[in-house]
Amino acid sequence: MGQNLILNAADHGFTVVAFNRTVSKVDRFLENEAKGKSVVGAHSIEEFVSKLKKPRRMMLLVMAGPAVDDFIEKLLPYCDKGDIIIDGGNSHYPDSNRRTKYLAEKGIRFVGTGVSGGEEGARYGPSLMPGGNEEAWPYIKDIFQSIAAKSDGEPCCDWVGDEGAGHYVKMVHNGIEYGDMQLICEAYDVMKRGLGLSYKEMGDIFDSWNKGVLDSFLIEITRDVLRFNDDDGQPLVEKILDAAGQKGTGKWTAINALDLGMPVTLIGEAVFARCLSSIKDERTRASKLLTGPKPNFTGDKAAFLKNLEQALYASKIISYAQGFMLMQSAAVQYKWKLNKPSIALMWRGGCIIRSVFLKDITSAYRENPDLENLLFNDFFNKAIHNAQDGWRDAVAFAVKAGIPTPAFSTALAFFDGYRTKDLPANLLQAQRDYFGAHTFQIKPEYANDKFKVGAYTHVNWTGRGGNVSASTYNA
Amino acid sequence: MGQNLILNAADHGFTVVAFNRTVSKVDRFLENEAKGKSVVGAHSIEEFVSKLKKPRRMMLLVMAGPAVDDFIEKLLPYCDKGDIIIDGGNSHYPDSNRRTKYLAEKGIRFVGTGVSGGEEGARYGPSLMPGGNEEAWPYIKDIFQSIAAKSDGEPCCDWVGDEGAGHYVKMVHNGIEYGDMQLICEAYDVMKRGLGLSYKEMGDIFDSWNKGVLDSFLIEITRDVLRFNDDDGQPLVEKILDAAGQKGTGKWTAINALDLGMPVTLIGEAVFARCLSSIKDERTRASKLLTGPKPNFTGDKAAFLKNLEQALYASKIISYAQGFMLMQSAAVQYKWKLNKPSIALMWRGGCIIRSVFLKDITSAYRENPDLENLLFNDFFNKAIHNAQDGWRDAVAFAVKAGIPTPAFSTALAFFDGYRTKDLPANLLQAQRDYFGAHTFQIKPEYANDKFKVGAYTHVNWTGRGGNVSASTYNA
Repeated sequence: MGQNLILNAADHGFTVVAFNRTVSKVDRFLENEAKGKSVVGAHSIEEFVSKLKKPRRMMLLVMAGPAVDDFIEKLLPYCDKGDIIIDGGNSHYPDSNRRTKYLAEKGIRFVGTGVSGGEEGARYGPSLMPGGNEEAWPYIKDIFQSIAAKSDGEPCCDWVGDEGAGHYVKMVHNGIEYGDMQLICEAYDVMKRGLGLSYKEMGDIFDSWNKGVLDSFLIEITRDVLRFNDDDGQPLVEKILDAAGQKGTGKWTAINALDLGMPVTLIGEAVFARCLSSIKDERTRASKLLTGPKPNFTGDKAAFLKNLEQALYASKIISYAQGFMLMQSAAVQYKWKLNKPSIALMWRGGCIIRSVFLKDITSAYRENPDLENLLFNDFFNKAIHNAQDGWRDAVAFAVKAGIPTPAFSTALAFFDGYRTKDLPANLLQAQRDYFGAHTFQIKPEYANDKFKVGAYTHVNWTGRGGNVSASTYNA
Repeated sequence: MGQNLILNAADHGFTVVAFNRTVSKVDRFLENEAKGKSVVGAHSIEEFVSKLKKPRRMMLLVMAGPAVDDFIEKLLPYCDKGDIIIDGGNSHYPDSNRRTKYLAEKGIRFVGTGVSGGEEGARYGPSLMPGGNEEAWPYIKDIFQSIAAKSDGEPCCDWVGDEGAGHYVKMVHNGIEYGDMQLICEAYDVMKRGLGLSYKEMGDIFDSWNKGVLDSFLIEITRDVLRFNDDDGQPLVEKILDAAGQKGTGKWTAINALDLGMPVTLIGEAVFARCLSSIKDERTRASKLLTGPKPNFTGDKAAFLKNLEQALYASKIISYAQGFMLMQSAAVQYKWKLNKPSIALMWRGGCIIRSVFLKDITSAYRENPDLENLLFNDFFNKAIHNAQDGWRDAVAFAVKAGIPTPAFSTALAFFDGYRTKDLPANLLQAQRDYFGAHTFQIKPEYANDKFKVGAYTHVNWTGRGGNVSASTYNA
């Protein structure tokens, strides 16, 4: 990743100093990939620092966690006030909050930047999401925006916000990536087990989906994966163990959503789906003890596949709406200014979730940067209404066929809950007041002298026990 | 709560010393509720400690958090080695881990105990879930089991495990309580908006459900709540604001599930449903911009209500199966011995989730304490197979009718995922290897010289880029 970013910067006319703890790697790099390019080697941290112009712009690409702190401590003795240290790893945003403050106290400007796009992205144009000490931005803007991916000529990189805001936005990006991948897996499962399609047919469907509203990197590579055969001519993907790994960023997003009290259900289900996949041995035992319906599709396959496409599209709209709700809440909670049109633009190219879809999101937020919810934008409002019949049909089919679609289902449940003025949580509040005297508020339209708007009231539900709720249930 | 526990202990023949920072409260308690009972007052911590037999058994009922630490520090100067300090608040289990260790170093035995059942439970028999320093158990067992709720003559209290295990089990209890309440709310919403039933009809249905497999405290109070009319003769619950509060224990459970990598999806959805309920103003705006189907039930209502009952029952089985999976994982991760039959027994009476259902869970774990999953027990295996047609029918109806049932849906998705040997996560692993060279394993049945069992392999999916995955997608 580091080597590719260096080559990328060199290609854009910047002179870069390269350093690695394993000095031989530096030499090998200079003699091979970097040969003839504006890359200078350093064999020690001291040499690395001394060769840089002031204020120095030093970017670390090391494993997230203590290694970042260790490297910063090694750099500090050689740094001058005003120097810039950039962490380009997948750091957890609270660490970047801490590092921004810690280094600011020493006069050093810290930047924590999300980098997405894998190796190829790093080489030819990643999505970059920098945040931290804003004083650093004028010094790195030109380099960052030069090496970043371009979308319709615009760089997929802009200043995200204070402290760990850059790594925060990268974390949500990864959470959304978890969601997108889970949705694709559910569509694949419905096609494979629900409709009994062949890999050839499924590859063709993803190819056609990649020409419509779902046009995206992940749909494209799914087509390629489905068409990729092993030496024996059989689809390799069928042979791959269905136990998904995770690097933790999806989990961090779900935990952050719980902490902020935002219903980011789709990412939550996507993370849990990976957890369930990982207990393969237990599932194998369960498969022998638990039975369900045998899928038996009798309708019009082509029409159903249109519905499935709409289910994926609508669920994806919900997932991104939830992701932006989360970032909006984080901006308030952490006192960050998060620029929503810029975030959408940063995700539009270079990164794993890049898509035509994100172009529409960029437009939505450019049209109205204060848009309360993506679903309130005309384009997405029409899109989700247009999708909903097919979406319901696809989910109902999966429910009856015994094929798990936790992400499709939770997206639909969110849509139906979000558009409901009066949810059944009134009963829940009554229960809590009944057994725990937790009190409740009244709906404004029912307010009167006894139940005032905004007041917290307790009612004696049983007619017994005075001010304390009571019950005689015996198990 | 404290007063009621004191009265409960006094009724069982124990002499109790009562202390409160607000000294006048002690006097008032002694002159009123405690009059004529074996309760002794103390007006200072020193007096409180001096009046207790050694080893002293001192139980705190103060707000979870720093107040517990503050009170412990105030007690310590007067304590002797071997004394026992019990925290009966809703403390987060990592705090109880810490306190157990800290106090053990000082020769003090710490117990963190879950207490459930509300005020009435505390007075006449709570569910008690003590954990911490096991040396304390012989000294408190008699008191705890005397004052605890009884179920078929057995006390709903047993030693849970080391350190914060007691508070951990209480946390999971509360998470399950969140799930149970959410399931009831979804059933109520389907009845109300889906079938158009009256409050009278709904009250009667919950009354009949309370005589079957769902027989439980929460179903009973739901019946009472639905039948409770305001002064104007209208159901009060309809007027209550549908914005649910939370004390954080449900959230802690969901976060812990994510941390341990266990798919506790139902509690996760229940917590998120509360989050969604709490943004009432935004939902109200959304309700004007987002439309859905108009529910129009035309079938046999009585038959459908049987299906709905089965949906609730099956979802509840899943939720408890997930909860026990989580505790099993915690036991391994935190090196606790958690006694599953005892936990089920502790929850069977006294607490908010008390039910006949937990009697069946107790039996299942008594029959086989090493039961891998509740769904593998004969009784629950039959029950869920028996329920599944109705469950699918109820969920499919809600999906088509536009009524959100996130907990019913996620439970069904879990069931279908859990019983699936080959989930679509094989595609996800292929995607991760494609764009990030994350490698994958092979299914054992496809292993060969190229792909060995357990080995992590990377494949060049594109035929380009050597060892690094690559793609040309442009957004």
